[in-house]
Order: sequence, then C-alpha cells, then structure tokens
Amino acid sequence: MNNFTFYSPTFFAFGKDTEKEAGAYARRFGAHKVLIHYGGGSAARSGLLDRVRDSLEQASLPWAELGGVQPNPRSGLVYRGIELCREEGVDFLLAVGGGSTIDSAKAIAAGVPYQGDFWDFYSGKPIEKALPVGTILTIAAAGSEGSPDSVITKEEGMFKRGTGSDALRPKFSILNPALTQTLSPYQTACGITDIIAHLYERYLTNTQEVEVTDRLIEALLLTMIHEGPRVIQDPDNYEARANIMWAGMMAHNNSCGVGRSQDWNSHELEHELSALYDCAHGAGLAVVMPAVFTYVMEHNVMRFAQAAVRVWGCHMDFAHPEETARAGIGALGRFLRSIGMPSNFRELGAKEEDIPQLARQCCFGNGRSGCLNGFVKLSQEDCQNIYRLMV
Amino acid sequence: MNNFTFYSPTFFAFGKDTEKEAGAYARRFGAHKVLIHYGGGSAARSGLLDRVRDSLEQASLPWAELGGVQPNPRSGLVYRGIELCREEGVDFLLAVGGGSTIDSAKAIAAGVPYQGDFWDFYSGKPIEKALPVGTILTIAAAGSEGSPDSVITKEEGMFKRGTGSDALRPKFSILNPALTQTLSPYQTACGITDIIAHLYERYLTNTQEVEVTDRLIEALLLTMIHEGPRVIQDPDNYEARANIMWAGMMAHNNSCGVGRSQDWNSHELEHELSALYDCAHGAGLAVVMPAVFTYVMEHNVMRFAQAAVRVWGCHMDFAHPEETARAGIGALGRFLRSIGMPSNFRELGAKEEDIPQLARQCCFGNGRSGCLNGFVKLSQEDCQNIYRLMV
Repeated sequence: MNNFTFYSPTFFAFGKDTEKEAGAYARRFGAHKVLIHYGGGSAARSGLLDRVRDSLEQASLPWAELGGVQPNPRSGLVYRGIELCREEGVDFLLAVGGGSTIDSAKAIAAGVPYQGDFWDFYSGKPIEKALPVGTILTIAAAGSEGSPDSVITKEEGMFKRGTGSDALRPKFSILNPALTQTLSPYQTACGITDIIAHLYERYLTNTQEVEVTDRLIEALLLTMIHEGPRVIQDPDNYEARANIMWAGMMAHNNSCGVGRSQDWNSHELEHELSALYDCAHGAGLAVVMPAVFTYVMEHNVMRFAQAAVRVWGCHMDFAHPEETARAGIGALGRFLRSIGMPSNFRELGAKEEDIPQLARQCCFGNGRSGCLNGFVKLSQEDCQNIYRLMV
Repeated sequence: MNNFTFYSPTFFAFGKDTEKEAGAYARRFGAHKVLIHYGGGSAARSGLLDRVRDSLEQASLPWAELGGVQPNPRSGLVYRGIELCREEGVDFLLAVGGGSTIDSAKAIAAGVPYQGDFWDFYSGKPIEKALPVGTILTIAAAGSEGSPDSVITKEEGMFKRGTGSDALRPKFSILNPALTQTLSPYQTACGITDIIAHLYERYLTNTQEVEVTDRLIEALLLTMIHEGPRVIQDPDNYEARANIMWAGMMAHNNSCGVGRSQDWNSHELEHELSALYDCAHGAGLAVVMPAVFTYVMEHNVMRFAQAAVRVWGCHMDFAHPEETARAGIGALGRFLRSIGMPSNFRELGAKEEDIPQLARQCCFGNGRSGCLNGFVKLSQEDCQNIYRLMV
C-alpha cells in the first residue's frame, strides 16, 4: 500500500425530509447570504426549491438564485455565477441538483475569491481558497456531494476538464433518497453506471497488496448489482435508492481508493464523447468501459479474474484465467444493457468517422503530452483502437 | 434504512514515517502548547517519543508530557491530566499510543474546559466542548483514532463506561503501520479481535434493507480473515499490517454502520470482564462473541447464515439454515483460537463464581435499568446464561 492522506470532512444528513434542514445547516457552516444554484425545471416542479427557500427563510438567511445548469455543466454559467455572487455579496453556495449542479457550484465557489480566470483551475492551477459549498443531492451518480472534484465543459471547443481540491469538499450534503424517485429509469441507470465506473477506476490498480480497498470496492459493486435492477424495476423503491445513494457517496469520497494507483482512463475516453455529442456521462461510460477493459485485460488477467469471481459470481477457470477475466467483463456489459444503457457508438449517437478526432483530443487536448496514464499507458493509436471496439 | 447523520472530519496521514509530520499537523490544527500523552515504556524504548518531540521542536511548539496510561485506562490519570493541562496552559492533546491512550486523551480534552467532574460525561451528560486531539496510533484495534468514542475505567468499583461526541473526533490521526510491528503476537491478535467485534456489533441489526452497509462490513471482515493470520505468522509484514490498520479505522468511524440499529451487547458483556479481571479487551471479546451469538442466533437465523456464507465461506444448507448459521459462529471461534485468543473463562482468568456479580453489574451498574438493549434484549438472567456458555 502506498502512503496517503485522507480527509473527508463533509457533514452528511441522510434520509427522508432532510432537505428541510438546509437553512439550519447553511447557518451552522457559516452562511450569511446564500446562492441557490440549480438546473432545469424539475427542482421547481417537484416543489423542492420551495422547500429549500422555506428552510432558508426559517433560518433567517437571505439568498440569490441562479438556475439553468445543464448536464455537462458549462463555463459560461460559471462566469455568470461568479459575477452574481460578487454583486450580491454571497458567501455560501447551495447546490440543489446532481453532479453537474454541484460541480458548477464548486467552480463558482473557487472563482469568487480568485482575481484571475477560474478556468486556470481547470488547466492545472491548484485551488487554495473557495467559498463554502453545501449540497442537496437529487441523483446518485457523480459522487460530487462527498468529493473534492469538479468537471466543467469549456464552451469554446466543447471540451471537459476537471480539478480537485480539499477546499471544494462540501461543508454539508443532504441526501434524501426520496428526491431521486422522480428520475426517469434512463437517468437512474446513467447514475448507476457512473457509480460503477468510479469503483472500477479505483479497482484497476498497479499497487500490490491492497486487500482492504479491493474488498471495499467489491462490496460497493455488489451493492450496485443487487440494488440497480430493483430500482429500475420499481422506481419508487426507497430502500434500493437509499442503498445506491450511500454507495454512490462512498464510491467517490476515496475511502475505498486510498493508498493505491487508480485508472481513470475510462473517464478520460468518455469525457471526449460527452463533450462532443453532449450524451449523458453515464451512458458514455457504459459504452467505454467494456471496450477499455477488453483492450487492457492482458495487462493483469488475475485482477479481472478476481473481479469476475468476487463481484460477478463467475466460476474460476484455473486452467484458463483469461476466460474468467473475459467472462467478468461480459457480465458487466450484460448488466449495463439490462438496466437500459447503450452498448455501442450507434446507440450513443457517436460517429465512427470522429474517432481520429476523439483520440487526438484525448491525448493532446488541453496541453496533454500525447497519452493517457492510467492502469495502462494508452497512446493515441491505442485510444483509436479502443474507440473502434465501441463501434 | 433509517435516517442518519455522518460526520468524520478527521485528517488521516497514513504510511511510513508519517509520525515525523506530527508537529506540522498539530500546528495546522491550531496547537500552541501540546500535551504528549502516552502509555508505558514502549513508545520511549522504540524511539517514537523522541521522534515526536523532534517533530514538535521543528514546528516550534512547546509541550508538556504525561505518560503512564494503562490498558483499560483509569479515571485517576484523567484527573491528573486535566490538572496538568490547566497548569501548563495546554491547548492541544497529542495521544501517542493505542486506544487506551487515545481514550484517556479524549477524556482529558473534554475535562479541561469543563467546570464539573469529567466523569459526568461518562454518566450520560453530553459533551459540547473539548480541546482538540491528535493521535499517533501504535496498535490497530479500538478505532478510537477515527471515532467519537472514549471508554474509561472508574477506579472506585472498577467499572468501565463510555461516551461519544463529535467534539472528541481527532483533528488528525497519524497511522504508520510500521509502528505496530513491535507488538507481540498476542497484542496484535487482541487488536484483530477488537476490530472484528466492531464489525459484528454493526452487522447484528434489526434494520431491514441495509445491503450497502452489510456489504461494507463483510468486506472488512474478509480483510481481517485474510490479513490476520498473515501478520500473526510474520509480524514484520508491513502490507498485512497496513491493510489491517485501515480496516480498523473504517470498522469504527461508522461509515459502515450508518442508518441501521447496532448491537453492542458483546462489548457490554466484555466491559465487565476486563473491568473485573483487567484482561485485554480483545481477549475478552474473543470469549464473549461466540457465546453471545450462539445464545441469540435464533432471533435471526438468516442474518447469521448470511455471515456464514458471505464471510466464512460456508455452504448454505437451504433445508437447515440454522446449521449454516451455527457453522459460521463455529468458524469465527476457530479463527479467533487460531490467532492465539482464549476461548473460555479459564483461559481468560475469569471465575465461574463471579457470574452473578458480572451479570448484575451489566444490567444494573451505573444506573442501568435492568437489561441490555442491543440486537436482542438481554435480562440479567440472559446475561448469566451467556456467561455460563463461556465457562
């Protein structure tokens, strides 16, 4: 196991009706004036925004509002948010929504106290200071409610880049599984896929002797395999949604990823797809993961065989471990299709002729040096080959 | 799943040589004058105390020292520590040791800013304020490095009582697995047993639909079963110790216990044993757990069968699930004996004739109302029956 530090100071309030405490928590964590940041109309239609406003009012907290966050959140709205916070004297960001809204709020939070262009932080500059952020989560997926990460899409060129800093970890996150019951089965499945990807990205490691984190990752994958189909079949299943919601947080606050090298090649390959086609991140990952894993499997057959046996319930073929490894990847692909996810470029709305551009952007976009450096080092040619497996 | 809040703001620095950063972390988390609190001579003999002093000196932090913490830490030393901190103007507690030292430091931390008797907190009064605590852990066991809990033994009457408060969660904890390599196999095994008990106490729940926390607990149990024998066989196995050390923290910071009722009857029954005979807490738990589980198994046979299959690798007997449940408890008992733990009163140094007193103290000691209220409600008679199973 490698040396590491781990710090996850977010206060979590989990369960039914917990959004009613938003005002009290914002006050407890230092708010004097709040920006309610949200996405489209669903938070308004469902009455959630009204409940949040009521809660702030009860806590005697004034607020401003900024809606309109899109999936794959854009830099343009971040610039507007920074300006609005400065004009209004906002000192606390309250994100009401999913990963996109939370990531957008984190970007605004970092931008407000910074003199330069906030995009500097998404081009490698470390974040040292940010306004405090609180979240009310409405989809279990990105894990941004407990993570130091934020991913934003730059409109000029439509490319996605991420950043991370302990300063971006939410002060509090309110997780009410009932708020996710209005999601469509497709949105729910995209969230499930994103959580599974966060687990696989950590599972694919080159660090030896990491039994504890291996086992924790497997535990969360087993949870997703058990609860995913239950919630797709019955969207009102509160208990299944609750298990998925906590698994989604634990999958990405890094308690299961400490002390080991991680992969993240699948995320990099996917980011180019959702940036170019504006597809859902989870749907992109469903197409990317089986292709990447098939391509890199030989790098460590036993790791994939371990996942196949421990997670997917495959029988170990001791004479041919590669068959077991392959069976596990096959089981992952079938699982993702079974919950309604796409499995190829066509279903995703991606085009074969764009592959050279996608691979080039992966390896050379935004100042990259020519390859991806995850579980396996992938050249531009490797990326092309992997994208071709998705056609 | 039940509603819950979860808050684990401790900063963890994990790995080789991390104790050299103690001074820098103490300063970062607000120290101006430190009390180094430690146990017996091993921290001095190993050179650890000198490295800690060097680190504080490098951070220009003055300090006082108070050693002499015993296993099952005593109230007497806590009173002395409180007095010393007040005299010396200490504003930060640095515990260098295991759970006993950390628990003693937490008690001092709560006592210094309190006008009354610190024992009030161990008799039910909530803790609202405490000096900040940092820890340098030297044994993976109690989980106190990431928990809000503290257990102290009152010398008058020799009984143990616990308390918990977010104010007692350490600001930082330094976990260097190499520091645990000097422990005897017996001490190491006691720690392993304590960790396993923290997991079982959470696993035995009456809450339905808790797949994610079930799976996480199972993951940590599987880790202990894999790594425990490796470290007993080879005390210098850094990797096995590292996996155990992170599992020990995760087992008790409650990320795996949220949203579910928990048991803690085994701990209550054990506390009376270690209070009366001053035996090691882990050794007591090794004797207590199989007896309790056998006694309460019928309350939920399927829960014990699930542990047997998923954790202990037993085959499910679908016609006779109680046989599978029993096989799992048997496997736990054999495992604990295999790492050198006692399995009965005689090996523990406990006496059959004390059973009425032990059961009475369990149910009526320190203002209790006549029973234990964990997974199963246990009367004084039940407690006697369970103690008898240990003879």
